Amino acid sequence: MRLVSPVIALLCASIISIACHAAEGMWTLDNLPRAQLQATYQFDPDDAWIHKVMHASLRLAQGCSAAFVSPTGLVLTNHHCAQRCIEAISTPRRNFIEKGFLALSPQKEVSCPDLEINQLQEITDVTARIQEKVQGKTGRDFTLAYNAIAAELTGQCIDGDESISLRCDVVSLYHGGRYFLYRYRRYQDVRLVWAPEFAIAFFGGDPDNFNFPRYDLDASILRVYENGKPVTSPDFFRINSAGAVEGELTMVLGHPGATQRELTVEQLLTLRDDRLVRTLLLYSELRGVLEQYGKSSREAARIANGELFSIENSIKVFHGQLDALNNETLMKRKRQEEQELQHFVATHGKYASVAPAWDEITRAEKVYRQIGDQHYFVELNKGCMSKYCNFARILVRAAEEKAKPDKDRLPEYTDAALPALEQTLFSAAPVYPEFEKVKLSWSLTKLREWLGVDSAIVQTVLHKESPDAAAAKWVATTHLGNIAVRHLLWDKPELVFTSDDPFIRMELSLNKVARSIRHRFDAEVEGAEQRAGRAIAEARFAMTGANSYPDATFTLRLSYGEVKGWQESERGVPPFTYFKGAYQRNTGAPPFALPASWLNARPKLDMNTPFDFVTTNDIIGGNSGSPVINRDAELVGVAFDGNIHALGGAFGYDGNVNRAVILDSAALLSALRNIYHADALLRELNAK
Amino acid sequence: MRLVSPVIALLCASIISIACHAAEGMWTLDNLPRAQLQATYQFDPDDAWIHKVMHASLRLAQGCSAAFVSPTGLVLTNHHCAQRCIEAISTPRRNFIEKGFLALSPQKEVSCPDLEINQLQEITDVTARIQEKVQGKTGRDFTLAYNAIAAELTGQCIDGDESISLRCDVVSLYHGGRYFLYRYRRYQDVRLVWAPEFAIAFFGGDPDNFNFPRYDLDASILRVYENGKPVTSPDFFRINSAGAVEGELTMVLGHPGATQRELTVEQLLTLRDDRLVRTLLLYSELRGVLEQYGKSSREAARIANGELFSIENSIKVFHGQLDALNNETLMKRKRQEEQELQHFVATHGKYASVAPAWDEITRAEKVYRQIGDQHYFVELNKGCMSKYCNFARILVRAAEEKAKPDKDRLPEYTDAALPALEQTLFSAAPVYPEFEKVKLSWSLTKLREWLGVDSAIVQTVLHKESPDAAAAKWVATTHLGNIAVRHLLWDKPELVFTSDDPFIRMELSLNKVARSIRHRFDAEVEGAEQRAGRAIAEARFAMTGANSYPDATFTLRLSYGEVKGWQESERGVPPFTYFKGAYQRNTGAPPFALPASWLNARPKLDMNTPFDFVTTNDIIGGNSGSPVINRDAELVGVAFDGNIHALGGAFGYDGNVNRAVILDSAALLSALRNIYHADALLRELNAK
Repeated sequence: MRLVSPVIALLCASIISIACHAAEGMWTLDNLPRAQLQATYQFDPDDAWIHKVMHASLRLAQGCSAAFVSPTGLVLTNHHCAQRCIEAISTPRRNFIEKGFLALSPQKEVSCPDLEINQLQEITDVTARIQEKVQGKTGRDFTLAYNAIAAELTGQCIDGDESISLRCDVVSLYHGGRYFLYRYRRYQDVRLVWAPEFAIAFFGGDPDNFNFPRYDLDASILRVYENGKPVTSPDFFRINSAGAVEGELTMVLGHPGATQRELTVEQLLTLRDDRLVRTLLLYSELRGVLEQYGKSSREAARIANGELFSIENSIKVFHGQLDALNNETLMKRKRQEEQELQHFVATHGKYASVAPAWDEITRAEKVYRQIGDQHYFVELNKGCMSKYCNFARILVRAAEEKAKPDKDRLPEYTDAALPALEQTLFSAAPVYPEFEKVKLSWSLTKLREWLGVDSAIVQTVLHKESPDAAAAKWVATTHLGNIAVRHLLWDKPELVFTSDDPFIRMELSLNKVARSIRHRFDAEVEGAEQRAGRAIAEARFAMTGANSYPDATFTLRLSYGEVKGWQESERGVPPFTYFKGAYQRNTGAPPFALPASWLNARPKLDMNTPFDFVTTNDIIGGNSGSPVINRDAELVGVAFDGNIHALGGAFGYDGNVNRAVILDSAALLSALRNIYHADALLRELNAK
Repeated sequence: MRLVSPVIALLCASIISIACHAAEGMWTLDNLPRAQLQATYQFDPDDAWIHKVMHASLRLAQGCSAAFVSPTGLVLTNHHCAQRCIEAISTPRRNFIEKGFLALSPQKEVSCPDLEINQLQEITDVTARIQEKVQGKTGRDFTLAYNAIAAELTGQCIDGDESISLRCDVVSLYHGGRYFLYRYRRYQDVRLVWAPEFAIAFFGGDPDNFNFPRYDLDASILRVYENGKPVTSPDFFRINSAGAVEGELTMVLGHPGATQRELTVEQLLTLRDDRLVRTLLLYSELRGVLEQYGKSSREAARIANGELFSIENSIKVFHGQLDALNNETLMKRKRQEEQELQHFVATHGKYASVAPAWDEITRAEKVYRQIGDQHYFVELNKGCMSKYCNFARILVRAAEEKAKPDKDRLPEYTDAALPALEQTLFSAAPVYPEFEKVKLSWSLTKLREWLGVDSAIVQTVLHKESPDAAAAKWVATTHLGNIAVRHLLWDKPELVFTSDDPFIRMELSLNKVARSIRHRFDAEVEGAEQRAGRAIAEARFAMTGANSYPDATFTLRLSYGEVKGWQESERGVPPFTYFKGAYQRNTGAPPFALPASWLNARPKLDMNTPFDFVTTNDIIGGNSGSPVINRDAELVGVAFDGNIHALGGAFGYDGNVNRAVILDSAALLSALRNIYHADALLRELNAK
């Protein structure tokens, strides 16, 4: 975390080799960096501007950002954010991943089985109401009290909403320094309007991912419906047809998922030595499995493509994070910042009680190092990597949790949270048994490897069977692939406990131990760290004032910056690419093969149309699909990536080299017009 | 590195929580820890004893240890050390991996295409001769001078040996503190006599690897021939039929491959952050590829099994090393030891010139961090992972190198080194094009990913082709799978330069850049670190005296210790397992499925026969197959593994928990008698 108080300004000048006035920060809309915006860009947004951008900005509940781009419910996001939908509605014969998709009229728009879109309506500060309940509590008591008040608040928030059109989340900012209730409109009827071919959406594929120059049309257009009709969306971003200009102020309105800029040094070390290493080893191996599985047939490749892409993306992210944490400069800065804060605590009597918080976190991390593998493989279900396992988990847990009063439930099973579970459980996305078997068999092998053959958990899961044999038998005999069976078990929880479905049986047999791991994790790791983190956050808050921004929490943030290249070793990287570059880079072989539509349209295109560009905006995973707007709240681009330096952004921002990678609105409109002939859509977008 | 001087003894008592009189050390036979052996075990080996164990101990040039166990050339090693041979002589119909192998008479013994066995004859101190030549030289000059004198010494050593029955290596001990010339008898005619089924040799498979309790018959018996006749081997270890006894002195005579106990802290950090992370990510992914490939057919599984096993083993080793380096206690100790040594240097004027050595190493490591990826993928050929690539590399380099005077060649192409290259190049082991294509295609993808699409190297290799397409085309059109073609190109180097074989063309096109990476690596990384390491080693030598042992270098070492269990968290682990345990652990499913021969023989076996055991001996990779002997030089076991704590042994030894895992000679003899009915073999072994 970079701070902007006088104490730390000194630190900037003396120790850190990066510009201190860089566009750092993921700001909440109620606490914009007005002074910096005014000083650097002579921009002072008024309330109407803020109201508009808040309502035009959207979140895809599965982990992306998006925006209304018409008054008729049209939503612009990345192709890769809609990819699960595009895959789910594809078949071997109608492969929209390969061929792209365009609905020539609203009637031809196709329902996305898994997408949920949220539009932020209201933010309420509930810090006092929560602190009253959790005051003085630690460990499991803290967790229980927190869960109870959170359930009460979200329950009141959605009260009387029969049509599940509201979604309410309690959000902890500044690691518990402040609590807010976020109320969203929830849209679960989302339909695909347009998507380009995967080959151009992800031109350059994994090799070019997190790199720049890029030539990606990483965009798709959706529409949200309510009661069978497109919603009316008075607040939306008009698409600017000229696109972005070098040096101009750009604002990204999005939902960055998570940063770790406020973690203590001890937490960063566990992340480095334990969590990141485990995840990287496992994901790398799974990547190899999926790559090779995809080579077994064209259909296998189609089915595995989405997960492979997601795994590869995660590997780059985590590898970048590991490199950042292995960087002595960063860690030195983190140590120094921690010492500054500890010094502040030691010299300000009011915060004397904060002093033990660092040791508390160290103790919690020690517990994590003991139970982390179990938590990962059992409670996070990574030892049973298959849709069947997820279904079984939801059904078994819900059968127990729904019988309890709302306030006593695990947070993900409260009334306010059920619609999200139902969407996963009743997704119409196809389940491919062969593919599920591959992932299941592999993950069972990993469960056995990491917990050990003699672990009671492993013996409960596998008895004396091999992972291959168990996976084959379970997949052959389960009925959870059948949506009607899942409905029945959801509606009649008593049937869950007597079910003879192998996945339900397995989940039931592990339920007690999984819950006890969860309890210990909640109490001794997460609960303890939240409490200690809150204490540290309060001290930090006192030291730096509100002139700081909280770690990302997948809530709406504004990041400001400008269109600007960077210096890479000896070489300057210019901020824009152009259509012509894509044709130069085309090799004809994936992932560098332009689709036929692009090859055919070449004569009609202006080769100097800007394609992608980079800005200094401070973004991170979750910002994918974010609208990038100018001061007039016009959309000039859609963010889809960061450069390789942005991966260290999880822990800190370096304005010299961190860059957001953005699709230019000029490229989007030109492609819709000249390549995809989406004339009706363009009229609706009424682009300026 | 642990030291035993008074300075460090203090350190043991105060800081390190491990017993200081533990059996640490991999001692050269000319510098045995006589005082400790005498004090702890009242054992004082005489010259005859040392002469005998030196000549009875053997090395498999590919990376294992072994021993003569009869006067008739019979050699005992691990099953996994002979596995490549067993695979190579297997076919789908005669699968010796699955079924095991027993030659009922010497005529039925089958030639191993790739095995070379070395018997140490003589060690000569050549420190003065080498130092005279390299004195004052740095970087590339040092490397060239060193290579030249090494070529001269090895050339003189094998002079007049027409039958390539001698092998001479210059060995640098104490990181260049001392140099020795090791002269071996070389045996390239090695034949398989007996091997059990893979299922019992590696019972428990990867899940149990590096764990204990174990139930593995990880042994095989070979015989060395010369001029078509079994060699006579007067020095051999008689196999003791009673096996080992708890608490008794055990000595391991073997060839530990490499330890990093003398590395500087900066070198350990590069290892941690750069080398280990890269290797672990890549190996994990390759593991996934091979696992999934092996599932495509029974034959694919048979073909991939050996490499998969080796990759899995490496992953466990490197992961264990990473954990060790992430361990703050170890790193603190390393820092402290380094400071002790730096203090010694600063306070002893004679060693003032050593002071800059640490900075020199830091500079070299910085260069490595820049060029490491290129060195790994291009010069180490990891971007072209296939037998074809290895053949092409040898042929192209040899065509150039053999034209130079011996002293100017790369060390691996000097006259003394050629027989080893020839054995690889002319190996009769089958080449499976489909399998080669899988590895090749995957590794080309990694080359592109790690060096970047726009790298000149990648463009030279792939032009505009995809890795899949390139791999398919090259494998389809190469002739390097044909041993006669390789012979021709070896004998007529001029044909190499005009060859149109795709692998040769590729190797030729990369040759210049690969060599320039090698040059820079040799000069600025390895050369610089050797020079600086030698300076540090001399200072350390002065500080600790000869009462220390050098880092492992795949040369013969003696480690002493005793049969002893250890305390694992709350639980004591006893030192022995017994036959009955294997039957209890049998699930019928691999890797926990006992083979039919074992199930059938059960009534004939004494269930209380000791099977495997653990000792405090300090061993590491390369020690696989080492004879474990008692004070009477009788073989009581064969080492095949370490426990999980032994993986940190690369950087230091902890006598409380580091354990060697050993097959008991009693189990071996009982199995040969009762399960494999190897009566003739037993008579020849004349076991006591």
